[in-house]
Amino acid sequence: MGSFKGHALPGSFFLIAGLWWAGKYSLWYATRRNKSLGSTSTRLASRSTQRRLEVIEGSVTLFFSVVGMLAEQFVADGPRLHLYDYSEHHWDRLHNWQHSTMYLFFGLAGAMSLIVHTTTDAAPLALDRLMLAIAFFIEGFLFLYHLHGRAMLDVHVHQLLLFCVFGEAMVSFLEVFHRGNVLLELLRASLTILQGSWFWQIGFVLYSPSGAEWDQKDHNNMMFITMCYCWHLVFSLLMVAALYCTISCVVRSRLKRTPPMEMGLLKPREREQESEDEIL
Amino acid sequence: MGSFKGHALPGSFFLIAGLWWAGKYSLWYATRRNKSLGSTSTRLASRSTQRRLEVIEGSVTLFFSVVGMLAEQFVADGPRLHLYDYSEHHWDRLHNWQHSTMYLFFGLAGAMSLIVHTTTDAAPLALDRLMLAIAFFIEGFLFLYHLHGRAMLDVHVHQLLLFCVFGEAMVSFLEVFHRGNVLLELLRASLTILQGSWFWQIGFVLYSPSGAEWDQKDHNNMMFITMCYCWHLVFSLLMVAALYCTISCVVRSRLKRTPPMEMGLLKPREREQESEDEIL
Amino acid sequence: MGSFKGHALPGSFFLIAGLWWAGKYSLWYATRRNKSLGSTSTRLASRSTQRRLEVIEGSVTLFFSVVGMLAEQFVADGPRLHLYDYSEHHWDRLHNWQHSTMYLFFGLAGAMSLIVHTTTDAAPLALDRLMLAIAFFIEGFLFLYHLHGRAMLDVHVHQLLLFCVFGEAMVSFLEVFHRGNVLLELLRASLTILQGSWFWQIGFVLYSPSGAEWDQKDHNNMMFITMCYCWHLVFSLLMVAALYCTISCVVRSRLKRTPPMEMGLLKPREREQESEDEIL
Amino acid sequence: MGSFKGHALPGSFFLIAGLWWAGKYSLWYATRRNKSLGSTSTRLASRSTQRRLEVIEGSVTLFFSVVGMLAEQFVADGPRLHLYDYSEHHWDRLHNWQHSTMYLFFGLAGAMSLIVHTTTDAAPLALDRLMLAIAFFIEGFLFLYHLHGRAMLDVHVHQLLLFCVFGEAMVSFLEVFHRGNVLLELLRASLTILQGSWFWQIGFVLYSPSGAEWDQKDHNNMMFITMCYCWHLVFSLLMVAALYCTISCVVRSRLKRTPPMEMGLLKPREREQESEDEIL
Repeated sequence: MGSFKGHALPGSFFLIAGLWWAGKYSLWYATRRNKSLGSTSTRLASRSTQRRLEVIEGSVTLFFSVVGMLAEQFVADGPRLHLYDYSEHHWDRLHNWQHSTMYLFFGLAGAMSLIVHTTTDAAPLALDRLMLAIAFFIEGFLFLYHLHGRAMLDVHVHQLLLFCVFGEAMVSFLEVFHRGNVLLELLRASLTILQGSWFWQIGFVLYSPSGAEWDQKDHNNMMFITMCYCWHLVFSLLMVAALYCTISCVVRSRLKRTPPMEMGLLKPREREQESEDEIL
Repeated sequence: MGSFKGHALPGSFFLIAGLWWAGKYSLWYATRRNKSLGSTSTRLASRSTQRRLEVIEGSVTLFFSVVGMLAEQFVADGPRLHLYDYSEHHWDRLHNWQHSTMYLFFGLAGAMSLIVHTTTDAAPLALDRLMLAIAFFIEGFLFLYHLHGRAMLDVHVHQLLLFCVFGEAMVSFLEVFHRGNVLLELLRASLTILQGSWFWQIGFVLYSPSGAEWDQKDHNNMMFITMCYCWHLVFSLLMVAALYCTISCVVRSRLKRTPPMEMGLLKPREREQESEDEIL
Repeated sequence: MGSFKGHALPGSFFLIAGLWWAGKYSLWYATRRNKSLGSTSTRLASRSTQRRLEVIEGSVTLFFSVVGMLAEQFVADGPRLHLYDYSEHHWDRLHNWQHSTMYLFFGLAGAMSLIVHTTTDAAPLALDRLMLAIAFFIEGFLFLYHLHGRAMLDVHVHQLLLFCVFGEAMVSFLEVFHRGNVLLELLRASLTILQGSWFWQIGFVLYSPSGAEWDQKDHNNMMFITMCYCWHLVFSLLMVAALYCTISCVVRSRLKRTPPMEMGLLKPREREQESEDEIL
Repeated sequence: MGSFKGHALPGSFFLIAGLWWAGKYSLWYATRRNKSLGSTSTRLASRSTQRRLEVIEGSVTLFFSVVGMLAEQFVADGPRLHLYDYSEHHWDRLHNWQHSTMYLFFGLAGAMSLIVHTTTDAAPLALDRLMLAIAFFIEGFLFLYHLHGRAMLDVHVHQLLLFCVFGEAMVSFLEVFHRGNVLLELLRASLTILQGSWFWQIGFVLYSPSGAEWDQKDHNNMMFITMCYCWHLVFSLLMVAALYCTISCVVRSRLKRTPPMEMGLLKPREREQESEDEIL
């Protein structure tokens, strides 16, 4: 990438993905907990609605992954599917190829999610999380061997990125076994927002649009950046919390208009359902 | 920090937190196991009492975190919310800022615990453990990038600290899935006491109030310090064990005064309950 | 090994093993899900058939491991069971001995699988996965200390190999606790195919049969190889997916000829069975 | 330690402990599986017998740990409880102190096991495994910082030791959650035997009683030693397997003399019990 845009673009994608996930899982959790309250809830949380959302998500992921792969190949200085420059005997624009590979895995994850949720029982349900875990793992894996010979600060900001990327891979893998655990889902959303906003931060630090350059060898800069990463995490946690609260309130206020039947009786039991496997 | 007081203060906080946790979880475990013995137990272990304790704990955590953040900012040589010194073009007292960030996360954990336990069903119960895990992880994460360019012994004593900090993060994360497992709770308490007493030890080693200085490059000192860390662990395990025994005995002796109804019959069943999910 | 053949041979074995596993577990999963559909399925998924397959697999593994050990010892330049050269006071052909050791552990895993599946209740069922996990771990462990003093690219391609070898060890170990989870089984199959095709790739890179040599110190080669590894993973995932789809379709089309009894009724329940413990 | 005896002694202890565990858990597993077969089995597997064995094991562990601590302190060149040599201003025989610390933790584990199994419900049952995990972890932790400034081969043989020590810590910690899983118990026994026999190997390599010295810097020696470690693992696995088979056969042949009642009927159900929580 090596440009401000090249970091802002994937950053925006991850930001949107994280917000989308935070909203989606908050909505499902809220409707699941208030299932007893009326027909609106049942309608919102109905299987067919959920499946439709999942299918849309899968399609959008797949679409943008393909666009990303094509863009990396055919932009002005892209390799245009040439991998090896035979005249000069060296590999051709490996960075673009690496980014294409990352998009490829996210595309696979999207396609797999599409297959799992459009067919009735072709594949095990947890496959979408497993492919997502693999996609995040490969993203981190490629970044890990991406940093040779760069300046200290450059290496450091990308290493910090690895924490949230491998964190997302681990959380997605845990979801294979603990599907429907809202905490893991919201944690994944937070880490995705963190990744997105950190991409923006990398853009500002390494290719500042204002032209100001950071001293890449100053240890104080590294210490500040590390702390800054934590602030991004606070920001992403607060974003997810705000979304969660808004959606919970909206769902509850909508449902209150319908008669609140056995609300009191059901609460204690609902408490324990919070890590139930969500059957789509 | 860089002073004896700067290490003794957080050390005392962690010591108190560890002892508090050891006491709280021992009490709950003892009352849960003796539930059948009489009304006193039921009262002690009642939901509302437990909730009140949790709310107090959350408030105290939040209060001291805010105090800590303010103190780090506005003490004699604090940055007073200035982050960048424009006149000399360098970051301003990053250490204070880093400590503020650590307090911030513990404050978030306290606030989240408060929200979870004051509202009935606004948020999933396990959220308090997840935020605690994140707070400990961030503490360790900031310490990890905190040690550049220090002397060998200085680095070593802080690295040893990381073992218990990351250990606490891991145990708290496990508690998200195994809530109410008394072993994990007491292990967390032990590690917190270890952290607290180790902060005191660091103060004595690096900024000895008696003025005696340690040779920072002597390998024998490092070997002694490593062993000393194990002794602190023994000490913290014994503290937790002593607290646990005292509380168990007190609870049992109090309950014995009420008629010991079906005690014999219930024992085998109670045995198996020890890792039950505690429903607050 | 140090030759093209020496890498192509184990590569072919792992490729075949991976494809075999992908096929076997897909077949079992498909028959398990369609159990209700008719007698053909019941016959295919019957315990005795499954046991026979497992016994054959164990025997073949054991046979080829023994052949591999003998081959490593008695090929033209093998050590012929001499471990120490007393005349020149050095160890004799340690590489061959190390490969023999690897084969030995796979042989043990095969023998253990044979024992577990031929006797009725001599040993706990999960023992075959535990031994497989140990065999893969030892393979990775020996490779880890195998790389001293080699060129950069040589070390790198073998390090990449470690990712899938230790991945297989971890997945096998998880299967001890989550036996019959089809996702773990297919993931293991994918990683085995990846290992097999990567052995071939190593052969082509280090001992190219066309005679072309790679620059072992060019960093671009390393970046390409890393990316290439991801493509091998894509390839292996697609192979497993293709096998899975083919087998699912064949099983379903065969079963459709028998009357589709209570298909509609059973679907929702079957959904949840996907991570059930498979009782052989 | 620094002597042949100093490695052979703990090695023998671990060998015996490993064999004892392999025997104990094999016996319990065999009796549990054949519970239906007659009264002999019931007697062997009765709670009181099991508890008695556990109490004996705890006492022996405690006794030898105390003896070990005293021996380390009061042998010919021990520190006799002096920690700091004030005349020469250096720490006094830190190695002996470190070994005392290791023994201390094993002593704690033994004492805890004693408390858990002598009292009826004073402490949660899984505490004995947790303390064992901590004892092994501390052993590995102290070895980790034990190796500064030694020769390459010396460091390497001790690093290999860490694999099995941390492995045992991990397995014991897993047993906190999967108590009674015979595979974990036998794996722990195997790793303990491995540790014991590897201590002997270290004695022979570093302080050969025959006087032959190994070249500490020869890379071939390191490769041989790594492979040798795998052979020790094979040896320990075979030992455990042999013990397991002998005990299973003896138990079954003894029980066969009593009428084999509903054997056929109960088999399928027993199959699934193999990872049941063993209620002492």
